[in-house]
Amino acid sequence: MNAGSDTAEVKLDIESAAGYLNMSQLRLKGLLDRRILSQIWNRSPYEGWDEHQRLFRFDKSVSKIEHGSVLYQKNGSFELIRGFPKIQRAMLLDPALKKYFSNIETVAVEEKMNGYNVRVAYIGGKVLAFTRGGLVCPYSTERAGQLLKRDFFDDHPDLVLCGEMAGPDNPYVPKDIYGIESLDFFVFDIRHKGSGAPYSLKERRKLAGKYGFRQVTFFGEFLLNEAPDEITRIIKELGIIQHEGVVIKDPQMILNPIKYTCSQSNCADLRHAFKFYNDTGQDYFFSRVVREGFQSVEWDEDEEELQKRCFQLGESILRPMIESIKQVRNGARIADDVQIRVKYPDTIPTYKDYLKRLGVDAIFGVPQRIGDEYIVKIKKLNQSTNDKTESMCKGELW
Amino acid sequence: MNAGSDTAEVKLDIESAAGYLNMSQLRLKGLLDRRILSQIWNRSPYEGWDEHQRLFRFDKSVSKIEHGSVLYQKNGSFELIRGFPKIQRAMLLDPALKKYFSNIETVAVEEKMNGYNVRVAYIGGKVLAFTRGGLVCPYSTERAGQLLKRDFFDDHPDLVLCGEMAGPDNPYVPKDIYGIESLDFFVFDIRHKGSGAPYSLKERRKLAGKYGFRQVTFFGEFLLNEAPDEITRIIKELGIIQHEGVVIKDPQMILNPIKYTCSQSNCADLRHAFKFYNDTGQDYFFSRVVREGFQSVEWDEDEEELQKRCFQLGESILRPMIESIKQVRNGARIADDVQIRVKYPDTIPTYKDYLKRLGVDAIFGVPQRIGDEYIVKIKKLNQSTNDKTESMCKGELW
Repeated sequence: MNAGSDTAEVKLDIESAAGYLNMSQLRLKGLLDRRILSQIWNRSPYEGWDEHQRLFRFDKSVSKIEHGSVLYQKNGSFELIRGFPKIQRAMLLDPALKKYFSNIETVAVEEKMNGYNVRVAYIGGKVLAFTRGGLVCPYSTERAGQLLKRDFFDDHPDLVLCGEMAGPDNPYVPKDIYGIESLDFFVFDIRHKGSGAPYSLKERRKLAGKYGFRQVTFFGEFLLNEAPDEITRIIKELGIIQHEGVVIKDPQMILNPIKYTCSQSNCADLRHAFKFYNDTGQDYFFSRVVREGFQSVEWDEDEEELQKRCFQLGESILRPMIESIKQVRNGARIADDVQIRVKYPDTIPTYKDYLKRLGVDAIFGVPQRIGDEYIVKIKKLNQSTNDKTESMCKGELW
Repeated sequence: MNAGSDTAEVKLDIESAAGYLNMSQLRLKGLLDRRILSQIWNRSPYEGWDEHQRLFRFDKSVSKIEHGSVLYQKNGSFELIRGFPKIQRAMLLDPALKKYFSNIETVAVEEKMNGYNVRVAYIGGKVLAFTRGGLVCPYSTERAGQLLKRDFFDDHPDLVLCGEMAGPDNPYVPKDIYGIESLDFFVFDIRHKGSGAPYSLKERRKLAGKYGFRQVTFFGEFLLNEAPDEITRIIKELGIIQHEGVVIKDPQMILNPIKYTCSQSNCADLRHAFKFYNDTGQDYFFSRVVREGFQSVEWDEDEEELQKRCFQLGESILRPMIESIKQVRNGARIADDVQIRVKYPDTIPTYKDYLKRLGVDAIFGVPQRIGDEYIVKIKKLNQSTNDKTESMCKGELW
């Protein structure tokens, strides 16, 4: 299984690619030399499929081409799947909405789900699921193949489905909060290949609905001056059920969407991050903590509410860290326990290779058959936190 | 005032300096080219004193020469003031003491005061106070001249006094906790020029005592196996009075000292840092938060103690940040209000220049005469936090 044919590398046709991307050949050559633009795969992940060598990804933003964009080359013609644009965040909802959306009358509010962002598209004869960085996740690709009816891509080979993979069988952000048994794909955007131009919210919900796709929850369209209060109400309700937050959109999708999240979601992120305190980027902690400060000011909290927020923040940081230190002191290794559920056993080693390539140290359990699928438990080891904690327990100095 | 003579730059005599520093001329030249070794001053801070051009500092650690080391060149001979060595931290006191001091029988414990570290030495005909980075702080230099009897340096021109400048008239870390009216210098080390070799603790306390210098509090010398409990007791007592912590030393000063701090001091640092949340390095937050986790584990805290610690941590982070956001929203600028107390009015513009050179944006108040001295209030503006907060309040996105 996972044989893959080792074929000679297909070189990017620099002359025509530079023309297609509207940049100079010299510039494009520089990107290839510095591996900012590079082949996604060295060898095919799928037996008998050789198109892998025609797929290239942008590891950084270049001119107007976003980080994570994917270029497909076929006989001198090209397709481009644009990287998913960064969604900026409102820190104070009221002034942010009024300033950012000042030229439109209403904003649409949809749920920001807590899973991982994938773009699914038909390319090189296959439906592939791309991560934010422009890699093809073999697990997400298998799941997308199961979850999304192929006829959408037959009818619309020029479209990219953007959505959140969410649910417990999620090797990145497993969440039980959505009442999903395994993993599901929630559409939040449909965009054109090449330009990356999005469908309007209404057209997107209509088209995705036509093919029976699940979509993120739509909370309504609000007049701009009512939106801050409405969104605050929605956020408070979402917080209670531990959901993440909202994305606020120009219904026409001309302006980029912006996001806003619940305190409970910040704290849940912190709890997870501080379990692996030495593996997580410090800006991850910092940004979440700062959000708490701004939200408290915006909500004009009284002493009792503020005290509650302080306590929750402190707990979200200290409890998981203390738990990890104790575990390591007692000789255990801390790990992020996740699982995947696959239909095809071949997906397992392919996914294992993929994680290895990402530098993730993971131990795969024995596949357990459930119906016509297999559940595989995966222990993702957080080596830096394990090592640091162990060395402190042995009396090393910081 | 503050005239300073603009003289031609004295070039470092590379051949003899390389010999003195025991490195190749090529290496030394490279350090000069990359400005890792550079002149401390472009022009003299003191009228009629031209030795400034003979002082060079190391901006990074190079071979065995610490960051902040200062080289003085005079007629082909040299003096070197070694940078103050980094003191490593025990995260878990018990295993750290047992491992690190395993070859000695007793450890001495002195107070780690919360001020700023300066090295004072007689060099080029003047007593100068060097910061950790090897710059000469004009304020500290004036204060050292007032606080330290000159006869020490006449008797021991080859020695460097290392100590903490602490008290309220402190432009870096003003603290009222020590019952000091203005600012005082507390000796914690005496070292030789050149080698940087320290006096033993006993000899240092004796010598500093002979000249009437104040020294950091000595808590005692403890058998290694009793030290963790004794230090825990000391730390808890210091915490109650908001002091910072302890430095644990090999009485012979052959092993480098290590440090350990109180939770209250971590939290005080966080309160100050989160007032200026966008100006402080994220590792500053992170390291203090992680210390809280380890101390809670080491002290085997029960649920009630843990809850108290969580609340204190959360408060130390959120309250100052919320206060700053509210201030900026109300149109005020947040600033770090500090003050200096000088005897010579000339010190004021010299110190202002010095802060400017460090990139600190500060507004100096009108000097107020108190006895035979002047108090100057200084507003240090934290531009990044002001700008970021203001832009969020205006509805910019993060």
